[in-house]
Amino acid sequence: MPAAAAAMTARYGAGAEPKAGPWNETLAVLMSHRSVRGFRTDAPPEGTLETLVAAAQSAATSSNLQTWSVVAVDRPEVRKEIAAIAGNQKHIEVCPIFLVFLADTSRNGRLAQEAGVELAGLPYLESFLVSSIDAALAAQNTVVAAESLGLANVYIGAVRNDVTRVAELLGLPPGAAPVFGLCIGYPLPGREGEVKPRLPQDAILHRETYDAADSGHRAAYDPRMEEFSRRQEMAGSTWSQRVIARLGTFKALHGREKLKEKIIGLGFPLR
Amino acid sequence: MPAAAAAMTARYGAGAEPKAGPWNETLAVLMSHRSVRGFRTDAPPEGTLETLVAAAQSAATSSNLQTWSVVAVDRPEVRKEIAAIAGNQKHIEVCPIFLVFLADTSRNGRLAQEAGVELAGLPYLESFLVSSIDAALAAQNTVVAAESLGLANVYIGAVRNDVTRVAELLGLPPGAAPVFGLCIGYPLPGREGEVKPRLPQDAILHRETYDAADSGHRAAYDPRMEEFSRRQEMAGSTWSQRVIARLGTFKALHGREKLKEKIIGLGFPLR
Repeated sequence: MPAAAAAMTARYGAGAEPKAGPWNETLAVLMSHRSVRGFRTDAPPEGTLETLVAAAQSAATSSNLQTWSVVAVDRPEVRKEIAAIAGNQKHIEVCPIFLVFLADTSRNGRLAQEAGVELAGLPYLESFLVSSIDAALAAQNTVVAAESLGLANVYIGAVRNDVTRVAELLGLPPGAAPVFGLCIGYPLPGREGEVKPRLPQDAILHRETYDAADSGHRAAYDPRMEEFSRRQEMAGSTWSQRVIARLGTFKALHGREKLKEKIIGLGFPLR
Repeated sequence: MPAAAAAMTARYGAGAEPKAGPWNETLAVLMSHRSVRGFRTDAPPEGTLETLVAAAQSAATSSNLQTWSVVAVDRPEVRKEIAAIAGNQKHIEVCPIFLVFLADTSRNGRLAQEAGVELAGLPYLESFLVSSIDAALAAQNTVVAAESLGLANVYIGAVRNDVTRVAELLGLPPGAAPVFGLCIGYPLPGREGEVKPRLPQDAILHRETYDAADSGHRAAYDPRMEEFSRRQEMAGSTWSQRVIARLGTFKALHGREKLKEKIIGLGFPLR
């Protein structure tokens, strides 16, 4: 199957492809994902947002608790401030659909309050984790749905630079916290990007027990990423260099060193 | 488009469908998701696991840090113990593919150690959250890929009942923690299940700012879930009743009240 083989080569690099398996249209959508930061301003057809959210709600949610929500933000002044919080990511202002996904236990809290019951299970790290995972599963379905419709996108983790201010801007009740944003729209011509190579599959997929031996994974991947980044961004750096640049300094946290106290402040005690 | 309309009705209930939008095969896969707990034991075709993990690695990962891993567990004695930890979920022992997804910053940690660098950004809640989200995005792509191939599945959040023991069983290094499991296989005839109704879209999707008014969402959804659960499980209870049963007591945490100290013990300081 040449399409499957080509998709594997694009994702892993020539010579690093995993064993070929079955193939179909949905796999083609999944495998060709790329993050796009240059959007046209024209809106997708009517009903698109509702279809994306229907796909999102179709994702699994822990015990059907549905502990997530999403806010569609259009107001230019709010987009502008979130873009600034996110380190001046202009595409947040430009893309036709901008969503902020929330870890949201407040809906469950409200129904319990009305019933005169206290939710003893809520104040734990578990609840924050479950609701963040609920939001992530929903968001990933949104991404797949969007890409199946030719809509490009990029996650905006940098809303976590200041969750307190983003929560204020969106009028969130206690028990709801922004987890990440998502820009969606048609890609600008020339900004569609290229499939980004990932670590060899053996580095990620372990059999029976975890194998911490590197077995040449980075030696193979570092030059591949260096070549990719040179082609895409004119600044060649290896994966190892990028990991160290991103995680090596306190400064690169851009305020996220305060995430814990801010999440607690938004009504998740993280016990 | 009758297929789109039917999918919306199945997911939201008659009369509660959101505005219809575009439609395609991938949307059909996404919208028809259901969790399945009865699996045939026969393995899917050769290369299936590798294809699922290729789809998983194609999901976005924060700053391309790739802070997740997955362990495919086949050994019956390990499956059995994880099934017991998860409250005797027999399908964990039966399904042909059982995966445990990990939040994993250990790979990044090892490369920094080799380079003689300390990763100042790692010890924060942010890192644990990013790696858990990375794992969730990857897992959701796995689910969509599986369902596109006719493979049913169910997430196993209950591995978090005892992450310390699951980590031991899988030989995890410090900086790697189980986030959830995933059973995959062909559904047993009669166990394919039914699409589960979700909250009305207006309860989840907010415009510009969060709307905490219930606006009849639960009044519409509670009887819908009661009817669904009676049809599926012979025990009718409303969504509100289920939320209170799941979150109302400390006991229902099944050990997850210790998740925080156990995650810290696995090498995530959660600062």
